[in-house]
Amino acid sequence: MSKFSYEVIKTEVNTGARLGKLHTPHGTIDTPVFMPVGTRATVKAMTPRELEEVGARIILGNTYHLYLRPGHELIKEAGGLHSFMAWPGAILTDSGGFQVFSLGDLRKITEEGVEFRSHIDGSKHFFTPEKVMEIEMALGADIAMAFDECPPHTVSYDYAKEAMERTTRWAQRCLLAHDKEEQALFGIVQGGMYKDLREISAKDLVSLDFPGYAIGGLSVGEPKPLMYDMLEATVPFLPFHKPRYLMGVGSPDCLLEGVLRGIDMFDCVLPTRIARNGTVFTGQGKIVIRNALYKNDHSPLDAECGCYACRNFTKAYIRHLFNVDEILGLRLTTIHNLHFLLELMQKIREAISNDDLLSFREEFYSKYNGNCYKNEV
Amino acid sequence: MSKFSYEVIKTEVNTGARLGKLHTPHGTIDTPVFMPVGTRATVKAMTPRELEEVGARIILGNTYHLYLRPGHELIKEAGGLHSFMAWPGAILTDSGGFQVFSLGDLRKITEEGVEFRSHIDGSKHFFTPEKVMEIEMALGADIAMAFDECPPHTVSYDYAKEAMERTTRWAQRCLLAHDKEEQALFGIVQGGMYKDLREISAKDLVSLDFPGYAIGGLSVGEPKPLMYDMLEATVPFLPFHKPRYLMGVGSPDCLLEGVLRGIDMFDCVLPTRIARNGTVFTGQGKIVIRNALYKNDHSPLDAECGCYACRNFTKAYIRHLFNVDEILGLRLTTIHNLHFLLELMQKIREAISNDDLLSFREEFYSKYNGNCYKNEV
Repeated sequence: MSKFSYEVIKTEVNTGARLGKLHTPHGTIDTPVFMPVGTRATVKAMTPRELEEVGARIILGNTYHLYLRPGHELIKEAGGLHSFMAWPGAILTDSGGFQVFSLGDLRKITEEGVEFRSHIDGSKHFFTPEKVMEIEMALGADIAMAFDECPPHTVSYDYAKEAMERTTRWAQRCLLAHDKEEQALFGIVQGGMYKDLREISAKDLVSLDFPGYAIGGLSVGEPKPLMYDMLEATVPFLPFHKPRYLMGVGSPDCLLEGVLRGIDMFDCVLPTRIARNGTVFTGQGKIVIRNALYKNDHSPLDAECGCYACRNFTKAYIRHLFNVDEILGLRLTTIHNLHFLLELMQKIREAISNDDLLSFREEFYSKYNGNCYKNEV
Repeated sequence: MSKFSYEVIKTEVNTGARLGKLHTPHGTIDTPVFMPVGTRATVKAMTPRELEEVGARIILGNTYHLYLRPGHELIKEAGGLHSFMAWPGAILTDSGGFQVFSLGDLRKITEEGVEFRSHIDGSKHFFTPEKVMEIEMALGADIAMAFDECPPHTVSYDYAKEAMERTTRWAQRCLLAHDKEEQALFGIVQGGMYKDLREISAKDLVSLDFPGYAIGGLSVGEPKPLMYDMLEATVPFLPFHKPRYLMGVGSPDCLLEGVLRGIDMFDCVLPTRIARNGTVFTGQGKIVIRNALYKNDHSPLDAECGCYACRNFTKAYIRHLFNVDEILGLRLTTIHNLHFLLELMQKIREAISNDDLLSFREEFYSKYNGNCYKNEV
């Protein structure tokens, strides 16, 4: 019997939000959940211990990057990705689809798969659904993603349809090739910005009976209201009792809006990437720590935050660290931003539990820059 | 009464090594001690918590760098350097002498002080003994260093004498200007590579009655045997009951040789700097983690080490992190190298306690590359 299962604990009155538990070989995870991204077998600038302290229980690894460096064979030899990076929690690996299709001229798509050149050294590689399954099984994450085609949001109806249908055929091949009992394989809904294609994609994948479903091809540059429309056109066709994962989403407003539309899982590089540039989330919105405004500010990044950075250091100090390019600066902002998002998810789960998510959203938006919905990255 | 004092607990039979306790407003420190360097109010890549975990009890701050950025006034406003950087242990600040004299054409020395241009923006500044005392008192370290002139090791006898005599006159001015009860001010012995000048410098400074003495102008490029000669020409003229600090020394062999010659305190950027380039100390000598030799090496950096890096991660993983420029890589090597040196000092203290330092040295050298004394950086 599989060690992976999902249970819906509760659905909120008046919204699509739900509380759930994701059982994996590396622990049980409360959903809705945000998953920090550890592209190259490390969440940038964080130790596993710090990840646990900010509340992370499941993180991402990127198949494309790990395949190129250090190679899935080495990671397999090390006992899998958990062991290689010494992360005791759960891991989800993406399929490399998004990265490979982002290579533009460096890749060529056929029914068989995608030929591409490495962004590092130009070497030639070929990803097929079968090859990606081989890599993901070697990495040994708790959740693997099927190999999909992720076209740009500006793509025509005809191409979106073609790519979506190919994604479904590839999903079938992934299911056939996947053979690892302790690893759950999720399908990925595609269909561009076309509601009917999203519905078809969802229904076709559901007929293949995956243990979980991702919604791909969103948060790729389209306006947020359009993304929400696509969620509303997709979620109703996904099974109630299986987890729903919105890929690539991590701004506070999008997390809230996603949860309200029935999403259980999210991932994004946003919190860690903006942290390295000195931008931090606070309950009042984002702040840029290099701003001269904070030169003499001897208060923490966010007075209401309980993270290691806010318990010990001031804005003036962190600003100084950024001004002189000291690594501790981006370490502290990374810790803070991840803590902020993971704590937001905790508050969202509490609000669902209290059937109170709509008023939580109202209060959050009223403090968070006032117009977070419109302006948030 | 001053909160600073030093007591010699024991002197080893047959060597000049001694065990001591340095009492400061921020804790009591067992000597001989190695002090990690936190140039710009952070030991590079480390949190205060990690510093405590590797066993650091006293660290350095650099007056020159902190004066330029973020400025001593800001640090004073933040409650001093301890508070600014959230370091609960003791701090020693250097005087900026070494940095200012390293500026070459950018500085001009007179009896009054040193005019120099910032290495950052070319702005003009003037350091006098009185100005440096003002800055160091604002920084508020437990130990401040007198402003000295540190000439190159290749300097002529006449210039070494002139610089040494000026350093003594500046030391007097520092004593007059220093007015901070909870901060101890150390004098710095100079005299180039000339034994008689070292003796004069030591005697003159001792007559000024500082609570501690540093030996400066060594470990600046001269051969190690010459440095040891200079130590032997200086230490006998320093008072037994006051701490002796050898500035800028941090390789394992030099620490051992320094302790054997009666040194109590050391500092150096070496362990943290080489860590960021992927070089780590082990009981068998230094290793370069990028070496292909470690590609499939799933054992820790040093099998006998108990640091966070060695308890959790392998050479293959850390090598991967360096190959893809992930910050966690240099974090782990920094933790390891500091732990290694601080544990070495702990072992040295135990050996002194057992009157066993000579055989400890023999055993250490027999394992550590076999010829550490000759080849170590």
